[in-house]
Amino acid sequence: MNDAASLLNNTLGEACPALLANLSPLGRRLAFPKDIPWQTAQAKGKTFNSTIGQITDGRGHAVPLPVMASSLAGLGGTDLDNALLYSPVEGVAELRQRWRSWQRRGIAEDIPSTMPLVTSGLSHALSTVADLFTSEGSLLVIPEPFWGNYRETFATRTGANIISPPGLEDGQFYPTAIKDALDTFPQGQPAVALLNLPSNPGGYTPTTAERAAIRTSLIQAAEKRPLVVLCDDAYCGLVYEAGVPRTSIFWDLVGAHPNLVPIKVDGATKEFSFFGGRVGFITFPFAPGSPAAEVMENKVKTLVRAVVGSPVALSQIIITQALRHPDITQMVENIRLTLEGRYRILKEALTQVDPKLLRPLPFNAGCFALVELPPHLDPERVRQRLLTHHDTGLISVAPRWLRIAHCSIASDMIPELVRRMEKGVAELG
Amino acid sequence: MNDAASLLNNTLGEACPALLANLSPLGRRLAFPKDIPWQTAQAKGKTFNSTIGQITDGRGHAVPLPVMASSLAGLGGTDLDNALLYSPVEGVAELRQRWRSWQRRGIAEDIPSTMPLVTSGLSHALSTVADLFTSEGSLLVIPEPFWGNYRETFATRTGANIISPPGLEDGQFYPTAIKDALDTFPQGQPAVALLNLPSNPGGYTPTTAERAAIRTSLIQAAEKRPLVVLCDDAYCGLVYEAGVPRTSIFWDLVGAHPNLVPIKVDGATKEFSFFGGRVGFITFPFAPGSPAAEVMENKVKTLVRAVVGSPVALSQIIITQALRHPDITQMVENIRLTLEGRYRILKEALTQVDPKLLRPLPFNAGCFALVELPPHLDPERVRQRLLTHHDTGLISVAPRWLRIAHCSIASDMIPELVRRMEKGVAELG
Repeated sequence: MNDAASLLNNTLGEACPALLANLSPLGRRLAFPKDIPWQTAQAKGKTFNSTIGQITDGRGHAVPLPVMASSLAGLGGTDLDNALLYSPVEGVAELRQRWRSWQRRGIAEDIPSTMPLVTSGLSHALSTVADLFTSEGSLLVIPEPFWGNYRETFATRTGANIISPPGLEDGQFYPTAIKDALDTFPQGQPAVALLNLPSNPGGYTPTTAERAAIRTSLIQAAEKRPLVVLCDDAYCGLVYEAGVPRTSIFWDLVGAHPNLVPIKVDGATKEFSFFGGRVGFITFPFAPGSPAAEVMENKVKTLVRAVVGSPVALSQIIITQALRHPDITQMVENIRLTLEGRYRILKEALTQVDPKLLRPLPFNAGCFALVELPPHLDPERVRQRLLTHHDTGLISVAPRWLRIAHCSIASDMIPELVRRMEKGVAELG
Repeated sequence: MNDAASLLNNTLGEACPALLANLSPLGRRLAFPKDIPWQTAQAKGKTFNSTIGQITDGRGHAVPLPVMASSLAGLGGTDLDNALLYSPVEGVAELRQRWRSWQRRGIAEDIPSTMPLVTSGLSHALSTVADLFTSEGSLLVIPEPFWGNYRETFATRTGANIISPPGLEDGQFYPTAIKDALDTFPQGQPAVALLNLPSNPGGYTPTTAERAAIRTSLIQAAEKRPLVVLCDDAYCGLVYEAGVPRTSIFWDLVGAHPNLVPIKVDGATKEFSFFGGRVGFITFPFAPGSPAAEVMENKVKTLVRAVVGSPVALSQIIITQALRHPDITQMVENIRLTLEGRYRILKEALTQVDPKLLRPLPFNAGCFALVELPPHLDPERVRQRLLTHHDTGLISVAPRWLRIAHCSIASDMIPELVRRMEKGVAELG
């Protein structure tokens, strides 16, 4: 452990001992070196600035290939420069401020959150927190069914021990799954839990009553151990039923218990329908500039620089321009309305199917719905049948589900899609 | 180890045992799961395709926020769709083909190389090969001076043991540094070496005779152990003296010895002056479609998906458009000529300085030059002095150098920059 890292860890230990208790060995080693980006930051504004290894005109402006400048001419002068040159490792300052305001729409001012740290897409935010908080044999609870890539991001890479209790009971969302699973582990052992709400592959987000039950159970779990709760908010805001909260559960967990540290992972990928842009964010439950905020920003920056150099500037500028627009809220709402339209048609179509063939699980949010197959049918066999005999592509999820992505199919095709699913299952008897 | 990973490792063991011998434990565990991207690929072209979690119009087209579509209107229809939607994990097919042709300008057809795999910038290519080929205590040789971020990317993250022999002898490039360092380790122990030519911070690329000496010495080293040579070609092509080869040393090493496996890491960052774009590539010395190529593509894809989801599509499309342009070679050459102009002025200015104050190391390429300070002066102290008293920013490199980035300072400012450096050093006497 170098001196700088020890100093950071000591500061974190005073400010938020539960977070320090969950830091991986790598997380403990991280400290931003007094290397090129650090020295470059110090040289900012100097007349003779020959610090940074990017090609400029010598006065801070980009020197693009003309063909690339022409592809991106719509961005305009200063924005074009900033899109072509390196982003700060922590992200473009204006984007961080604007995204923080976007995240905090309708959130009370006294609930603290850091300036979000920018990553190369939401998955990169997940792998960054995986590196910070999980390691060989460490405890990670993710209720099933969950997004398969978590296995690679967490277990395959860091060696974390993924505990996956059923997230459903009798076909209904089961809010205390994480707490119940943790109760079987020795008191005091640090743990990380992952909440992905609205969920992939489930397409479900909890009701007000269920959220309260999740919160209460996580506070109970935090009575017994330092608990980090990763809120994977990929599908934040995509909620289709009245009365079901649209805000992230992160905000309910901030300050709920000293041993409970929620971390918000979100991104422009789904929220701004910008899949190819690769901009994600990590946000901690601390006031900007507070000691814990500074320590975590330092450690995340070190890791982001070591893994990807810096996040993509071009996409950050595009999102910044979007956030500057006076109608941004309505533009995002229009996409939600499009998906809500598909959701209603899918919901209706699924009420028509024979429950002995397809049993939809509860869904009310996000991009997906899951249907349960008859117990004797392998979902992979059904998927192959639909591909080969019905010109239809779906995702199989072990042990017994098919995932429908209504985000990527047109409304007018949904009833026929469901009919084909039903037919394919019936043929396999 | 799951069955799929074992199968891949067996195939690699037959096709290229030296590469298998260098795979890290994580590298051995990787195998692309039969999960969403795999199932989505199978559903390609199906009429009813409801596989992928991205928002489309239901017929494969993006659904952008109008403000973002307008920022990017210069891209045009299909390209705009592809920029907004997810890239394949391995990268956009057209870009991979075109970048391969770009890499192979002037390279003989019988020298094999894979289709390059796309990453989120060149640093991400480095951290990916770090994960694949280094682990706790594994041997990694990087001649000094080297880019500081290698420490975080390799040692801090993976725990590799970095051996850093001097890359210079009597102020001259020392081509057998890696071989000499490896000779002190037990025969048979796998090792990874890193060549960064043109170099950062050195701004040096070897002459034809020096390249031949490097090649011969690495073949000798490979007689004793399985040796992976990472060629960090960040500054590929930026060479300013006639007769000094501009192509990557990777091509000299392909097929040189069965125990010697060069891996090419390059990117659009410097080669296309696109710093904010974050597109890098990993290329292996195998024919496309060969067993070793397929295994490594599988493993890299698994890791890229686990770490960043997929590489940035938007920047890939911008680079693809540049590569389609008939004048792309001249456009890139024009930037090289700009840098060559600054290089000549810097070279000339440094010949004027008092060698007791500043002694330039040999430089002929890339974005930088290094100057050696008098032995009693701490470079960090000199850097601070230049910042505070001379309005001048440079990078200090331990133990006794200052790095000048001529890529980011205008020609007409270079003589005064050098005068200020000399003055600052003289003041500290």
